[in-house]
Amino acid sequence: MTETVRDYVAAHTHRLHADLDAWLRIPSISADPEHRADVRRSAEWAAEALRRSGFETVEVWETGNDGHPAVYAERHVGDDKPTVVVYGHHDVQPVDPLELWESPPFEPTIRGDDLYARGAVDDKGQVLFHLLGLEAALAVYGEIGVNLKVLVEGEEEIGSPNFAALLRRERERLRCDVVVVSDTGIFDKDTPSMCIGMRGMVYAQLDVYGPRVDLHSGSFGGGVPNPATELARLVAALHDDQRHVTIPGFYDRVVPLSERERELMAALPFDEAAWLDDAASTATLGEAGYSTLERVGARPTAEVNGIWGGYTGAGQKTIIPADAHAKISFRLVADQRPEEVEAAVRAWVAATLADGLRHEMTFFGGVRPCLTPLDHPAVQAATRAMEQAFGTRVLYTREGGSGPEADLAEVLEAPVVFLGVGLPDDRIHSPNEKVHLPYLAKGAEAAAYLWRELAELPR
Amino acid sequence: MTETVRDYVAAHTHRLHADLDAWLRIPSISADPEHRADVRRSAEWAAEALRRSGFETVEVWETGNDGHPAVYAERHVGDDKPTVVVYGHHDVQPVDPLELWESPPFEPTIRGDDLYARGAVDDKGQVLFHLLGLEAALAVYGEIGVNLKVLVEGEEEIGSPNFAALLRRERERLRCDVVVVSDTGIFDKDTPSMCIGMRGMVYAQLDVYGPRVDLHSGSFGGGVPNPATELARLVAALHDDQRHVTIPGFYDRVVPLSERERELMAALPFDEAAWLDDAASTATLGEAGYSTLERVGARPTAEVNGIWGGYTGAGQKTIIPADAHAKISFRLVADQRPEEVEAAVRAWVAATLADGLRHEMTFFGGVRPCLTPLDHPAVQAATRAMEQAFGTRVLYTREGGSGPEADLAEVLEAPVVFLGVGLPDDRIHSPNEKVHLPYLAKGAEAAAYLWRELAELPR
Repeated sequence: MTETVRDYVAAHTHRLHADLDAWLRIPSISADPEHRADVRRSAEWAAEALRRSGFETVEVWETGNDGHPAVYAERHVGDDKPTVVVYGHHDVQPVDPLELWESPPFEPTIRGDDLYARGAVDDKGQVLFHLLGLEAALAVYGEIGVNLKVLVEGEEEIGSPNFAALLRRERERLRCDVVVVSDTGIFDKDTPSMCIGMRGMVYAQLDVYGPRVDLHSGSFGGGVPNPATELARLVAALHDDQRHVTIPGFYDRVVPLSERERELMAALPFDEAAWLDDAASTATLGEAGYSTLERVGARPTAEVNGIWGGYTGAGQKTIIPADAHAKISFRLVADQRPEEVEAAVRAWVAATLADGLRHEMTFFGGVRPCLTPLDHPAVQAATRAMEQAFGTRVLYTREGGSGPEADLAEVLEAPVVFLGVGLPDDRIHSPNEKVHLPYLAKGAEAAAYLWRELAELPR
Repeated sequence: MTETVRDYVAAHTHRLHADLDAWLRIPSISADPEHRADVRRSAEWAAEALRRSGFETVEVWETGNDGHPAVYAERHVGDDKPTVVVYGHHDVQPVDPLELWESPPFEPTIRGDDLYARGAVDDKGQVLFHLLGLEAALAVYGEIGVNLKVLVEGEEEIGSPNFAALLRRERERLRCDVVVVSDTGIFDKDTPSMCIGMRGMVYAQLDVYGPRVDLHSGSFGGGVPNPATELARLVAALHDDQRHVTIPGFYDRVVPLSERERELMAALPFDEAAWLDDAASTATLGEAGYSTLERVGARPTAEVNGIWGGYTGAGQKTIIPADAHAKISFRLVADQRPEEVEAAVRAWVAATLADGLRHEMTFFGGVRPCLTPLDHPAVQAATRAMEQAFGTRVLYTREGGSGPEADLAEVLEAPVVFLGVGLPDDRIHSPNEKVHLPYLAKGAEAAAYLWRELAELPR
């Protein structure tokens, strides 16, 4: 008798739960030097779990700069089969403030259908559903139709400082046709969804210099360019009245939202009041002609992250400041290129800033946006897998920021699809992080279906 | 034989020099608590000198809040005569950096025609020329035609914190028809001039609040108002493209520059390159349609004195700041009223700032501008006195900032005229402060002539 994937998963979730309980007891806080050994222990635990699940090659990978180790596992089926890299991470966020946890963060506790612990959904639970999914697929189908490579990072919660270098070093071994990222969530409990794109970024510091020293604003006020005033005028000129970014060429490479994506995005049950409450803000404001979800996910932006210059103490000091500064970041969407945006920003600032001022610009990093369009075969395959698991239509989202996903897409030159089952109220990074156990089972199911779907991927 | 004032002054400058030498040796640094007793000693020295010069009533006036004492002297001629208050100050600036002085700051040293010491021109020399002027007038004319009141402050160099209160307390005794301020200078060595107006000020701090906490600019960027961006847009909106201030009503009470004043101001040998060098700046920038001298003296302004918000450390932090702040000051010209400008600024900010932000405004103090128009009889009288002393035409200037002069004009409700003989290169507040001795003699002469001129003042 041939069991179904659903039946197999249901009959074996206790193994997923037992593994998760064991792994979550390892406090792999990457940000805390005192937990350095725990992060390594977590990597070794993951390696052992991957070996048990039938991966032939399992290695703990050291990262550069004495960073935390990643885990790599490989299961080869055939050179003629598509190859998939599954990405997740085994490090977790700090737990402060500890007193707000209803049960200790590293003593996994089930209440109702949820399991509470630091790392439950971000990201140990979502790594582990892949192991049960693989077991189910093997049990039900006999074999899966893709070569599977799993990469579990240990530094995601500290900004993946060594991840891009690791990917470049191991580019050959990580060669693949598609990347599956399991570190995200669905829109809400009733709305299964998949992220299809993440914004990139260009981050600049602008230093504006006027007089060599602070001037008395009585003697000189009104007669010379004031760096703080002129910086403010420059910042104001970043956007027009419609809140479009005014920098020439900024939008040239932006892939317009398709009518179909806009329709599907509009079908998401977005609760603007609740979102504003999350934002601790009282009003939306953004680019004319786009919804809030489009503005924060699918449109590029210019934001001031910091601004300073002149006197900032108590009371009054009547000066024209000698200098003024701003941190300005640009969120990018496909197919904007960080290096082109940087050049456009530099040219615009030089052309826009008032005469009589000197300026310098420093750019930090630069992250490419990534987008796998919803009609891409990999996205369609993942959609079918998710729809089969959840039994309902799957919608699409975009993420406003990006982490290692951009590195994966750029270095591995493969489309990225997001298979995640987190919920908006899972409290990632906060006290009482949890995972909804029935959705971990859905994740395992979806993973099992996905390998069948991806086996048909045009290569 | 009737001597001339000039001859008398020339024959007795040694007394002025000897007095000045003695007074300058008292280090009356009001900013330094260690020199507290010296400031008092300086007041007592001045009181004694005023007594010697024939003032009937001489008093050391205590100020409020345990401040430094002022000196008051009165010489009454007749109830039917106009009354003049002469204002100066006996405290001096600190002397750091001491190593840059070519001779010790409190050991007056004559080199060429200049006497070097802290306080030489600011303001002890300019107080003392009045005493020689009075002696000369009495010697040559037998009597002067005005009642003379002298007020020598001890806290001018620390911002006159108790001066307005002192004026209010002694308003009755200080009742007068005109105030003569001797604490300024002339345009340059070859261009005798008189200041006729000083700008006032309104100083505001603006606090803008957006989200309750810093937000992740990836998740929320482009969707909610950013306090730093919106503050910058507000600051930018302070001026239009012509650099006029845009706040409704701001210019309503501004007394336009007369054609005659503009012509006379244009006749000043203003060296813009040298002025820019002083400003340590490389370009002028200001209100269209006005010269630099007009912009910094006779036109109101809006200047950012400080701005801050969000992340200001090294590298990048991707936040939408929860708040942003600016210090913004407005220089006022006659007849703008600080309280009206404050109300206009408050209304404009409330109407201009983007929705979804909360803001607070705090105003510090508020100084009235003062202006005695050049056709005012007191200005004309002082002009004739200066022209007689210098033997050449006298031009007019405006000062961009103001100190106790605004208090004098406002509390005493009298026109203020400026009789000063400092030079632009006298290095007030800097090492090697000096006074040009021949011009102290011109000051004494002009003072003697002034009492005759003011005797004719319509009352």
